[in-house]
Amino acid sequence: MANEHRRNIYLKMKTLDQARALWSATTDGLRAPAEIVPSCMALHRSTAEPVSAKASVPHYHGAAMDGIAVKAHETFGASDVNPRRLILGESAFPVDTGDPLPGLTDAVIMIEQVEKVGETEVEIRAAAFPWQHVRKVGEDIVAGEMLLPQHHRLRPADLGALLAAGVIEVKVYRRPKVWIQPTGTELISADRALEAAPGEIIEFNGVVLSAMVDECGGDPLLREVIPDDYTSIKSLLEQAAASDADLILLNAGSSAGSEDFTAEIIAELGEVLVHGVTMMPGKPTILGMVKGKPVVGIPGYPVSAILAFEQFVRPLLLSIQGVPSPPFPQVEATLGRKMPSRLGLEEFVRVILGRVRGELVAMPLQRGAGVITSLTRADGILQVPQECEGYDAGEKVRVRLVRPEERLDDTLVMIGSHDNTIDILANELKKKDSRYHLSSSNVGSLGGLMAIRRGQTHFAGSHLLDTETGDYNFSYIARYLPATPVRLVQLAGRQQGLLLPRGNPKNIQGIEDLTRPDVRIVNRQAGAGTRILLDYCLQRLNISPEAVRGYDQEEFTHMAVAVSVLSGRADAGMAIYAAARALHLDFIPVAEERYDLVIPDSSWEDPKMQLLLEIIAGDSFRRMVTSLGGYDVSRSGTLMGRWDGTKWL
Amino acid sequence: MANEHRRNIYLKMKTLDQARALWSATTDGLRAPAEIVPSCMALHRSTAEPVSAKASVPHYHGAAMDGIAVKAHETFGASDVNPRRLILGESAFPVDTGDPLPGLTDAVIMIEQVEKVGETEVEIRAAAFPWQHVRKVGEDIVAGEMLLPQHHRLRPADLGALLAAGVIEVKVYRRPKVWIQPTGTELISADRALEAAPGEIIEFNGVVLSAMVDECGGDPLLREVIPDDYTSIKSLLEQAAASDADLILLNAGSSAGSEDFTAEIIAELGEVLVHGVTMMPGKPTILGMVKGKPVVGIPGYPVSAILAFEQFVRPLLLSIQGVPSPPFPQVEATLGRKMPSRLGLEEFVRVILGRVRGELVAMPLQRGAGVITSLTRADGILQVPQECEGYDAGEKVRVRLVRPEERLDDTLVMIGSHDNTIDILANELKKKDSRYHLSSSNVGSLGGLMAIRRGQTHFAGSHLLDTETGDYNFSYIARYLPATPVRLVQLAGRQQGLLLPRGNPKNIQGIEDLTRPDVRIVNRQAGAGTRILLDYCLQRLNISPEAVRGYDQEEFTHMAVAVSVLSGRADAGMAIYAAARALHLDFIPVAEERYDLVIPDSSWEDPKMQLLLEIIAGDSFRRMVTSLGGYDVSRSGTLMGRWDGTKWL
Repeated sequence: MANEHRRNIYLKMKTLDQARALWSATTDGLRAPAEIVPSCMALHRSTAEPVSAKASVPHYHGAAMDGIAVKAHETFGASDVNPRRLILGESAFPVDTGDPLPGLTDAVIMIEQVEKVGETEVEIRAAAFPWQHVRKVGEDIVAGEMLLPQHHRLRPADLGALLAAGVIEVKVYRRPKVWIQPTGTELISADRALEAAPGEIIEFNGVVLSAMVDECGGDPLLREVIPDDYTSIKSLLEQAAASDADLILLNAGSSAGSEDFTAEIIAELGEVLVHGVTMMPGKPTILGMVKGKPVVGIPGYPVSAILAFEQFVRPLLLSIQGVPSPPFPQVEATLGRKMPSRLGLEEFVRVILGRVRGELVAMPLQRGAGVITSLTRADGILQVPQECEGYDAGEKVRVRLVRPEERLDDTLVMIGSHDNTIDILANELKKKDSRYHLSSSNVGSLGGLMAIRRGQTHFAGSHLLDTETGDYNFSYIARYLPATPVRLVQLAGRQQGLLLPRGNPKNIQGIEDLTRPDVRIVNRQAGAGTRILLDYCLQRLNISPEAVRGYDQEEFTHMAVAVSVLSGRADAGMAIYAAARALHLDFIPVAEERYDLVIPDSSWEDPKMQLLLEIIAGDSFRRMVTSLGGYDVSRSGTLMGRWDGTKWL
Repeated sequence: MANEHRRNIYLKMKTLDQARALWSATTDGLRAPAEIVPSCMALHRSTAEPVSAKASVPHYHGAAMDGIAVKAHETFGASDVNPRRLILGESAFPVDTGDPLPGLTDAVIMIEQVEKVGETEVEIRAAAFPWQHVRKVGEDIVAGEMLLPQHHRLRPADLGALLAAGVIEVKVYRRPKVWIQPTGTELISADRALEAAPGEIIEFNGVVLSAMVDECGGDPLLREVIPDDYTSIKSLLEQAAASDADLILLNAGSSAGSEDFTAEIIAELGEVLVHGVTMMPGKPTILGMVKGKPVVGIPGYPVSAILAFEQFVRPLLLSIQGVPSPPFPQVEATLGRKMPSRLGLEEFVRVILGRVRGELVAMPLQRGAGVITSLTRADGILQVPQECEGYDAGEKVRVRLVRPEERLDDTLVMIGSHDNTIDILANELKKKDSRYHLSSSNVGSLGGLMAIRRGQTHFAGSHLLDTETGDYNFSYIARYLPATPVRLVQLAGRQQGLLLPRGNPKNIQGIEDLTRPDVRIVNRQAGAGTRILLDYCLQRLNISPEAVRGYDQEEFTHMAVAVSVLSGRADAGMAIYAAARALHLDFIPVAEERYDLVIPDSSWEDPKMQLLLEIIAGDSFRRMVTSLGGYDVSRSGTLMGRWDGTKWL
């Protein structure tokens, strides 16, 4: 085999806990060099030594109010019945807030309680007690006092305290320098994305890792990509180890075996502590030390890279600045569907989260290590312990939050059929009220109804054709939601049809051509409205599914069907017109169908839902949907019917 | 009066809620200009429009594993009993992860499941299903799909998704530019802190506000200080309004009436919406609009400035980037002591927080608007509604967190007598374990014992002299902690004595001189160990407190006593030697006393406490304490006794 000679991988495989413990023990006490910076530039830096005040704050006794400064004992006895007169410039001195107390005065009487009597006298009706309305020297800070401890991360108010106390520069840890080395012969830069050849991969992990370093208070040194060969990697690692970088990240391309190079080279130049971690994604992580410097071999798949960074690089970057790693905030949620997981691997499953009928529901997203949108779309991450084989639907699970907990109530959950207009809805919702967020999980129309039945979603998207009546959704709701009152609102009418490669090379004219031996289709998954539509069309033509090549090849979204056709893997597939148009495919209309939202009564009054309904009925949404092509928005927002759980009203 | 002509303040006084609502309604829809930036530079920016994918990810069908690519249907039927041979280059193609699938292959068999047979053939023992171990085109992202909605704040993974999808630049809101204008004739820069004359105030609010702007994703434009006069401020505001700044902050000096200038000038050039908010600190806040630009008059006291920023500037800065304001995380805590508050003002009280015996306890810190250390030391902020007259000790209150909730369990609370060694303890604790944090509240020795009795502190610092026995703490604990088992551990011996101005100008020789008519002292508050010591000394000499001038003038810390002497407000005061040394005062030793830690059994086993005890017994702590002067550390860490709630063991 091409890479047979480097198959001896994972000699130092560790569990996540073992790897973290070993890593933290090995790097314990490592600190970035200290440096002295102007206090005004020290935001978010961590103090490398305790800081003492140089000056007292205030540095003089000053008036804390506008009024007159007096000697308190000269006011004793003053009262309403026995007002006291004071002479300006002798026993009473006008002061503004912040003015130093003149002479031996030791109290201030507020201007509101002073009455002017002629040009030179004032009258007061209450005595002042000593130090009343006076900011005394050192009331806030006393010179010589310890102002801030070591290992304190400086916040805005801290900078104020430093400057107030005359500390104009401060000894802090240097921002840790992180050498980020992408390796991979197949890597090309993102500006070439549109002309990428098969096998070429866009380098973006370097940017992601740089951004994460930045968020940890470090300075990323993102290097040029080097080819995936032993000599280049070794020479670069030697260079990095000799540099002033505090930490080295080697980011393998996703081609196989490149990690093995890394491990071999680290072992040659230093020590490999861990090679392989029983986590998924993130297994091919390498932890090592070269010339006293930590080196991390970051896996190539983007989700793996991010998770490996979170587990091993983030805590280290913080600890070398003397800053503790904040624990990830967690919540308890109910799992929306069954989720098996492999024994022996600690799995990190990205989920969407939303509070439905008072209960937090977690729905797993795509699990592939290469699916970066599973992270961009995630509200949380469910960590499945390695001794766990997964969870059943309805089980309580702990989920690490990716977005603030307070935001969960602002999330509207949609589970059901996929439609591009849902993305537009999500966008409009956020545009109208930036607090709100639409999280969606595409499981097909029937899956959406099931989610409503189980109380796991705020609404569902559905386009289930009743082949008896030719109408949509009504009969399915009656059948599958026997006890759940819902409202049915039309989102849009849309054209379904056959997607064909541009120019229609196989000259397909309609459904009947799908039985041709030279035609191979791509289908949607069982339960999808589009699949039901295809079945209906086949049935009307008395075509058996077995007669259609590719009938079993399933995809989960319209766009995935379009992609299959575009890439030549299929000659035809049923999907909406908008998908054809997005990828410039040919399209043969088959049916005009209704895509509705099924909204349980329990979420109807939710302000987020009301805003969503307002958006659907509005012009901006209609315009955007129309521009996708193949949609009819004339009845968008129309209430199609009300189901009370037993009958349509 | 000096400033009589500008006393007409607060014509547009509003409650905090009113002011926030009016401000948000007025500034609703204001957005920073959009700009196009390279995606790799767009971290934390907010999208100004929805972003669609330009390329699909993956853009080709690729191997997801190392192994051989096959046509799935050619493997059907392969099994252990019926292995299938495939010919390399014909029906089996070696591939590494990421390689494009060759020819019409549609599945990958993992290398581990392939057996080599000679040079040209391989054997498999299981069939492959179509698309097995294949990353299909568009599996992650489909070209044309909406990748991210508008008003989405870009995180590291989002940058990866953008680049992966060929989106190399992105339209985002410009970082809002914030013109920060410090005004105040009395303001001097921090580098002159050590030579500041009375009445001069160090300008540091500008730096604090800049740092806060930075944290909100804005670009602070910190301007030179301008004098506090009408013409200068007006001309500057005109200039700011004509600039490309998105928001203008005018930061009054703390001299009185400057806000009035600001309000007047804003009214002249635009409109004042709010002048005065019923919040404390932060009352003199001004909200206005000039030529379509929001202008905020930020009060001069640092705590006021920070709170006004949080309430009015932060939400606006975020909303003009289309980003929602994250709500402040809150917790419920038990108030450690009675806290009155003024009716009609929404008060923000800074508190320390710690979990003692399972219950979260909040102890108020100093409440002055000028006390910036009340913010640097705070763990939380207690917001007292304006219709509330305050809370009793033991009441449940909601506290907004300043540090992450997860950190609260890492806080060790010490309530009691103040000693400089406590700061050293705090520092050593953080140095040893950066997670840990010591929060202290100085209420005197007796106050500390009371806090233990009420279960409000992990430990107390105490140096209570038993005037009968000459010993420390034992009898007080027996008396005040009748049912609370504690251990008593010596922190240090220390010298108490009279602090005198340098050179001892009044030639004070000892306690007996305190009755002299030309001598005025500063005292500690009732319940403080040092006060008890002074009383004991006076009593031994048969001196009545009434015979001592200044006996009623109370301070709460040793350093405050030292400052009173330094500033000439008092001729003498009792305090520890370290305080005299810090401010270079003369010192007449009066007694060597014991400063002990009183540790309830309930917190003895706490790992934080154990670490603290380890620190106290260690060399580093002793060295640092010794360097303060006046301490005897020879018995630091010694267990002085164990009280079981009824007797000493």
